[in-house]
Amino acid sequence: MPSLIQPREDTGLAARLARSAAATEGAGPATADFASWLAGRGRASTFRVDRIPFAELDGWSFEEPTGNLVHRSGRFFTVEGLRVTEEEGPYGDGPYADWHQPIIKQPEVGILGILAKEFDGVLHFLMQAKMEPGNRPQVLGSARTGGTPTLLQLSPTVQATRSNYTKAHQGADVKYIEYFIEPGRGRVITDALQSEHGSWFFRKSNRNMVVEALEEVPLLDDFCWLTLGQIAQLLHRDNVVNMDSRTVLSTLPHADPTAGALLPDTRLLSWITGERSRHDVRAERVPLAGLPGWKRGEDTIEHQDGRYFKVVAVRVQAGNREVTGWTQPLFEPVGQGVTAFLTREFDGVRHVLVHARVEGGFLDTVELGPTVQYTPGNYAHLPAAQRPLFLDAVLAATPLYEAVHSEEGGRFLNAESRYLLVEADERLAPLDPPPGYAWVTPAQLSSLVRHGHYLNVQGRTLLACLNAWTVSGR
Amino acid sequence: MPSLIQPREDTGLAARLARSAAATEGAGPATADFASWLAGRGRASTFRVDRIPFAELDGWSFEEPTGNLVHRSGRFFTVEGLRVTEEEGPYGDGPYADWHQPIIKQPEVGILGILAKEFDGVLHFLMQAKMEPGNRPQVLGSARTGGTPTLLQLSPTVQATRSNYTKAHQGADVKYIEYFIEPGRGRVITDALQSEHGSWFFRKSNRNMVVEALEEVPLLDDFCWLTLGQIAQLLHRDNVVNMDSRTVLSTLPHADPTAGALLPDTRLLSWITGERSRHDVRAERVPLAGLPGWKRGEDTIEHQDGRYFKVVAVRVQAGNREVTGWTQPLFEPVGQGVTAFLTREFDGVRHVLVHARVEGGFLDTVELGPTVQYTPGNYAHLPAAQRPLFLDAVLAATPLYEAVHSEEGGRFLNAESRYLLVEADERLAPLDPPPGYAWVTPAQLSSLVRHGHYLNVQGRTLLACLNAWTVSGR
Repeated sequence: MPSLIQPREDTGLAARLARSAAATEGAGPATADFASWLAGRGRASTFRVDRIPFAELDGWSFEEPTGNLVHRSGRFFTVEGLRVTEEEGPYGDGPYADWHQPIIKQPEVGILGILAKEFDGVLHFLMQAKMEPGNRPQVLGSARTGGTPTLLQLSPTVQATRSNYTKAHQGADVKYIEYFIEPGRGRVITDALQSEHGSWFFRKSNRNMVVEALEEVPLLDDFCWLTLGQIAQLLHRDNVVNMDSRTVLSTLPHADPTAGALLPDTRLLSWITGERSRHDVRAERVPLAGLPGWKRGEDTIEHQDGRYFKVVAVRVQAGNREVTGWTQPLFEPVGQGVTAFLTREFDGVRHVLVHARVEGGFLDTVELGPTVQYTPGNYAHLPAAQRPLFLDAVLAATPLYEAVHSEEGGRFLNAESRYLLVEADERLAPLDPPPGYAWVTPAQLSSLVRHGHYLNVQGRTLLACLNAWTVSGR
Repeated sequence: MPSLIQPREDTGLAARLARSAAATEGAGPATADFASWLAGRGRASTFRVDRIPFAELDGWSFEEPTGNLVHRSGRFFTVEGLRVTEEEGPYGDGPYADWHQPIIKQPEVGILGILAKEFDGVLHFLMQAKMEPGNRPQVLGSARTGGTPTLLQLSPTVQATRSNYTKAHQGADVKYIEYFIEPGRGRVITDALQSEHGSWFFRKSNRNMVVEALEEVPLLDDFCWLTLGQIAQLLHRDNVVNMDSRTVLSTLPHADPTAGALLPDTRLLSWITGERSRHDVRAERVPLAGLPGWKRGEDTIEHQDGRYFKVVAVRVQAGNREVTGWTQPLFEPVGQGVTAFLTREFDGVRHVLVHARVEGGFLDTVELGPTVQYTPGNYAHLPAAQRPLFLDAVLAATPLYEAVHSEEGGRFLNAESRYLLVEADERLAPLDPPPGYAWVTPAQLSSLVRHGHYLNVQGRTLLACLNAWTVSGR
C-alpha cells in the first residue's frame, strides 16, 4: 500500500519549469509568428472604444448623497472616496502624509488562472488573446499583420470575477474555469491571494493560480500553448503580456542553487515586519462628492493640479459578436509610469533593491515594491530634495531590461509603465541602503510570493520580467 | 574577507531549541520552586480589582452620538459596534450569517517580545511575572506560598503598545525594550505580525518576536530565565503561562525530520487560499448605541439572551506601588471556552485537524483555528443538528493534554478556555475531513506562523501546548 504521507515540497518542479524556460519554441505558434497569430485573433473580433460623458453611462450613476459612482445592479465595482493619513509620514506615492483620492472598491475575489500541460516532456502554458477596453491600440510589428491596431494582449487562461464563475447560469461563459474550481481536475502548482494596485483599488486581491492538467485539454479559439521560454521573449516586447499574466507568472517557483543572500530569510521577514509596524496608516472611505482637491466635470473627475489620474467613462462596441457592447468607468493615469528594480551582484549572487511601500488601498499597510515606482510628472513641480529616491538615477540609466507594459485594461485606461532593470554600483545604491529599502534575491521574492500581500503588483511584474531577462535577455 | 552572502536558513537553530526543550532545569528558578517564586513576586506587589458601574470609569465615557466607549485622551482603545455579514454563511462562532456585536478597536501594533540567551550552551527565555486585571486570582499550589491568591502570570519579557515604546518620556518604563526596537542589539529568531482574537478585536495584530541577546543581560526584579523544557512543564499547569507568552512561544521553529505530510505545502496553501476565497464576509463598523440584540445597563452591555460576552468596567488598585490605580473597560465572556485539536498519526506522522475559521475582526476573512473553539453555553439552546462539528466528541473524550489557560488579561475578564489535545480515529475524524477542515502536521503550522494571519491566537496557544506535550507530557 502506498504511504499516505507525501514529501512537503515537489523538488522536481523547479527543474521542469527551468526546462520550459529553456524551450524557445513549443507545441503552439512559433515565436516568430506570434504577432501575426495575435493580429489574426484581433481581426476575428474587432472592438471600438470611445470616451463618453458620465451622463451617457448605461446603468451607472452618481448615487446621492455620497456622490459615489455605482452600477444600478450593485455589481461590478464602485468608485468612492478615500482619505489616507499617515502618522510621521509621508511614505506613499506623493510627498504628502494626508491625502484624499478616488478609489475603486470591488470586494470580490476573482481568479487569475493559467493552465499548464506537458507536451513532449516540456511544460506549456495556455494563454488567451483577450481584449480589454483600457489597452492602448497596438499596431503589431510584422508586415503580414497589415498594420491593424489591436486591443488584444495575452491574458491568463482564466480571468474571472467571483460573479462570473459562481452564478450557475453564467458559468459556461468562462472557458476552462473547471480546472480552477473543481478539486482534483489538475495538480496545483501555485495558488495565493495577491494584491492589486493599492493606489487605485481598495483592498482588492485576486487568486493567482497555476494548475497543471493531467489529461487531454481541448484547444479553443483565441487560446494558444506557449513555453516559458516563448513567454520570456514576449515579455521583452511592449504591451503584449498583460498584467494578469505577469502577476500569475511571477508566482512560479524557481530553484535557488546557492540558497544564500545578504539577509537570511528570518532577518528579511523581520525587516518587513518592522516596516509594517513602523508605518501607522489609516485609510478611511469617504464620499466621492466634495472630495478635497478633486473636481467633477461632465467627462472626468480630476485632481485640481492635473496630477495623478482621472476618472473617465467609455463605450465599448464589438464589431462582430453577439455582445453588442457596454459602457463603464475607467481610471486614466495622467502620464506614463517608471517602474524599476536597481540590481547588483554581491559575491556573485544577484540582488534587487526592494522598497517597503505604503499604498492607501493595501490590506496590510506595507508591501514590497520596486526600487522606483512613480509617475515622474507628479513630481516635476517639486524641489530636488523632495524628489523620490533613485528616480533621477533610473531615468538617466541605460537599462539591462526595458519594456512598456500596461496595467489591468479592464479598469485602467492607457495605464502604462516603462519597466526597467538597472545595474547599480556602490555609489548609486549602497550595500547598506537607506531606511525603507532592502537587498533581496529573486529566489527570496519567489519564496515570499507563495504567500499573499508581500510583493505588490508592480513588483510582481518586475519579478516576471527579471526571470524572463535571466532566461532570454542577456 | 568573509563573504557578504549568508545561508538563507539558520540550520542550527532547531537543534539549539530542541536542546533547550530537553532541559528540565536551568539557570533560573528550579521548576519545583517556581510556584513559590511566582507567589513571592505576587506578595511583593498586591493588586485589587473591583467591578464598577460605567459611570465610575475615570476618563472613559460613551461618546455621542455613536455611543462608543472611548477614553478622553483618544488613546488606549475604543469599544464600538460591528456588523458582520456572510454571504452563503454561516461559518463564524455562532450559527448565524449576519450578526451585530461590540468589538474592541485598538489599531496600534504592540510588541510581544521574549529575550533569549544561552547559559552553559542552553537557550533560556526571559519571562516576567506580570499582573493583568482580567486574570482570575489563582491560589498557588505549594504550602510555602501561604495560599495567597495572585493575579500574576508569566508574560513575555516585553508586552508593550506602540505608545509605550515610541513616546520618549515613557520609553524608560518598558524594561528590555531596547532589544526589540534597536537593530543589532541581538539576533532575531522570529518576528511576525500575528492576529489577536478576531471575535473580540477589530483587526488587531501584535508583533511577536524572539530575540537572542549576545551580551550580558541584567536580571531585574519580576523576571526569570527559564528553559523551553521548564516552560513546557508550566504549560501543563492551569493559568500560569499567559496568552502573550503562548503566542510568542508558538512561533519558535521546530525541526521536521520526516518533511512529510498528508497535504504537500502547495496543496495546503491552495486549500487555505480556497477557504479565503470561498467566504464572502463583510465586517462593517457601526455605532455601539442601539446595537441590535445588545442592551446597555449601568454596569454591563450584554446580549439579550445572555450569550457570548459582556462589556464591563473595573477599578484596579495597587497595594504598594507608586501607581495608585486606574479604571478600564474589559470584555467578560459568559462561560468557559473549549478549545481543542483532534489529532491522529498517519503512517507514523502526527497531524492535527485545523478549521478554517471566519471571525468578524480578522484582517483577511479566514485564519486557521483549532478543530473546536467554542463556548458550549452559547450552543446549548440549539438542536443537535446545529451544534458545532466535533464539539460533543471533544467534551466526551479523555484528552492527551488538558489545561485551563486565560486569554489576554489586559482586555478580557475571567476569559478562560480548556485547551485540549484529543486523540481521534477514523470514525471520529476521517482521513478525508468535512469541508472547512484539513489535516496538517505541527511542522507545517510552524512554517505558517513564520508569516502573519495564518493561525489564529487560539490555534497558536494549542501549537505551543502541543510542542510542550511532545517534550514533556507523554
